[in-house]
Amino acid sequence: MKAHLSRRYHFPASHRLHLEDASDSENDAIYGKCNNPHGHGHNYTIEVTLSGPVSGKTGMVCDLAALDDFTEKEVLSGLDHMNLNNLSAFAGQVPTTERLCVHVFELYQKFTLARLERVRIEETAKNSFEYTGS
Amino acid sequence: MKAHLSRRYHFPASHRLHLEDASDSENDAIYGKCNNPHGHGHNYTIEVTLSGPVSGKTGMVCDLAALDDFTEKEVLSGLDHMNLNNLSAFAGQVPTTERLCVHVFELYQKFTLARLERVRIEETAKNSFEYTGS
Amino acid sequence: MKAHLSRRYHFPASHRLHLEDASDSENDAIYGKCNNPHGHGHNYTIEVTLSGPVSGKTGMVCDLAALDDFTEKEVLSGLDHMNLNNLSAFAGQVPTTERLCVHVFELYQKFTLARLERVRIEETAKNSFEYTGS
Amino acid sequence: MKAHLSRRYHFPASHRLHLEDASDSENDAIYGKCNNPHGHGHNYTIEVTLSGPVSGKTGMVCDLAALDDFTEKEVLSGLDHMNLNNLSAFAGQVPTTERLCVHVFELYQKFTLARLERVRIEETAKNSFEYTGS
Amino acid sequence: MKAHLSRRYHFPASHRLHLEDASDSENDAIYGKCNNPHGHGHNYTIEVTLSGPVSGKTGMVCDLAALDDFTEKEVLSGLDHMNLNNLSAFAGQVPTTERLCVHVFELYQKFTLARLERVRIEETAKNSFEYTGS
Amino acid sequence: MKAHLSRRYHFPASHRLHLEDASDSENDAIYGKCNNPHGHGHNYTIEVTLSGPVSGKTGMVCDLAALDDFTEKEVLSGLDHMNLNNLSAFAGQVPTTERLCVHVFELYQKFTLARLERVRIEETAKNSFEYTGS
Repeated sequence: MKAHLSRRYHFPASHRLHLEDASDSENDAIYGKCNNPHGHGHNYTIEVTLSGPVSGKTGMVCDLAALDDFTEKEVLSGLDHMNLNNLSAFAGQVPTTERLCVHVFELYQKFTLARLERVRIEETAKNSFEYTGS
Repeated sequence: MKAHLSRRYHFPASHRLHLEDASDSENDAIYGKCNNPHGHGHNYTIEVTLSGPVSGKTGMVCDLAALDDFTEKEVLSGLDHMNLNNLSAFAGQVPTTERLCVHVFELYQKFTLARLERVRIEETAKNSFEYTGS
Repeated sequence: MKAHLSRRYHFPASHRLHLEDASDSENDAIYGKCNNPHGHGHNYTIEVTLSGPVSGKTGMVCDLAALDDFTEKEVLSGLDHMNLNNLSAFAGQVPTTERLCVHVFELYQKFTLARLERVRIEETAKNSFEYTGS
Repeated sequence: MKAHLSRRYHFPASHRLHLEDASDSENDAIYGKCNNPHGHGHNYTIEVTLSGPVSGKTGMVCDLAALDDFTEKEVLSGLDHMNLNNLSAFAGQVPTTERLCVHVFELYQKFTLARLERVRIEETAKNSFEYTGS
Repeated sequence: MKAHLSRRYHFPASHRLHLEDASDSENDAIYGKCNNPHGHGHNYTIEVTLSGPVSGKTGMVCDLAALDDFTEKEVLSGLDHMNLNNLSAFAGQVPTTERLCVHVFELYQKFTLARLERVRIEETAKNSFEYTGS
Repeated sequence: MKAHLSRRYHFPASHRLHLEDASDSENDAIYGKCNNPHGHGHNYTIEVTLSGPVSGKTGMVCDLAALDDFTEKEVLSGLDHMNLNNLSAFAGQVPTTERLCVHVFELYQKFTLARLERVRIEETAKNSFEYTGS
């Protein structure tokens, strides 16, 4: 018996979508209001989905306390209350939520207690992004 | 790197579920309260899911402003604040939310900036429907 | 010790906002899309708030099963899956959600197991209305 | 044309996660606060997803009233306002939400009006589990 | 300038509504399913509302970190993952959510950095209770 | 008959909580992570509550299209996708959400079609602030 578990984490951050080597009008055409100077921000929600066999002993797929510890140390510590444009993970790149989603997926690849299936990031109540590793 | 993006749109509309060539008791057996005369309505939510490569330049799967424009003109303009029973798309058919879901999927097939993966329509907080094109 | 309890109920219905004795352009100016012919609809949420002393014996303000029974028989039975324009409560009146709110408040005035404080009706995720009886 | 429908049901219940043949410290290491004596509880949400062809006549995948009746009699009657540790379905097993999810899936396998695709159980706003039958 | 701030906290717990000195049928009449033997549980949400002047220096009504610390130590530590029937605060009393609401209000009266206005407890998505101190 | 209407608007923005004339350690003590350099952001929700008589003719408290137009031009245009630290409204002040709430209230005081009762701003799913004008 294999089950999936999904767990949600929340953090606020800011970003500005801006291509250094594009003109103001090109930036405006591509990013619209998201190109406003000085940046804006969001309450981001991460939903990470893991899978694995349901343990015959414990009845669980994965120790959630271990997942919370991993997320705190390896994922949220680098993102919570940050300006995404200043993170080394996005050096030379525009920190869109698509790229944030890929970045968070890659961070969770170091978590080994269950199989990583998917990372979804909700940017607003209207927008979400998913990445499954390829 | 291929990512999925989902975007949500809201509109109110009304419908009545009623088969013209069935008896009152048959209509009641099939549709229950949804067969009440004069119709009822819902706040419908459309969640459209698209996929595509994350652009190396812009970091995006798809221009969301273009998706919003398309949705406004090609999808919402024909559904928002409408009585679904009066739409030509449902001529001779009972406008269930299953059929609304298929109809909205077909409208989005004309959107070419990313691959259409799925349309989900939430009819109430309890009910949702999905169609993936086949 | 006096506490408040609030309980939420959901029902879908349809309405059309249209003044019989006004011109088309005046109706459009007042009601916009809500004046579209054939009507539209919503998933309405009622939140009724009651107050009263916390019973020293039962620890409760009010028997919720009694409230549910009352609501089913006296409130929802006349509204659920209905077209509000056809209800006698709104004869000769445009069934706006403001008026629906007042109507539901008046229905709950017959409930005698606790003091009626407020009725709130959520029409969409953006809009809500409240009435406190005067 | 094949569509999916998902429908959500809610019930409160309690459980305690505790292995009879493990020491207190081992139980604490595995289950943390969920091992607290006397148990705790949750508002559980079941989301069941079914699929099938959209009927050319009725426009529906499945009769929702029949699904509601089945759910009431075969699923909720055994879970609603219960202590999961006392249910025969979990005899000799720790009633984790993973196991509850598998149990609910197996109950829905007796529903024959559409194809059972998935059962998801939301335990809290942060946690959910899914089972697809294998 | 006086503003209100509200902050929300979540915890799961269990309870059984049962009067020791009432008959089974009387308990059933008063509490219904909430009287089921062995108890059930909920994901409770506390929303505490405080008020005070907006500090001319900091721009804040109250230090939220101090509120979180107080809540963790004085409120949640005694409720989180507990069976409410076993708490000394409810000795000899049925632990209804009305009483839980009064109890939590009394705990917050020891918080002195802002004026306590109201405690609301959401028991389910349908039910909430409020207490303002009298 | 006087009713209240509440309408919700959403916008993302960024801010940094930082007192220029305080030391780093003092800023950290007061604002914690909200003092992180380069700022962070939120999806803010404004809920504005207005009251007035229910018009005997239209059945409405206030023209919602007029409220939407006012909000777009007078409120959101100055806040949407902005860095609040750069706004003239907060010159020399730390742009806390308490102050944002007072600022938005003052902007709505120019709206004359109904009585302004309250502005609530939700900063995250855990935090909200309210201001009623004094």
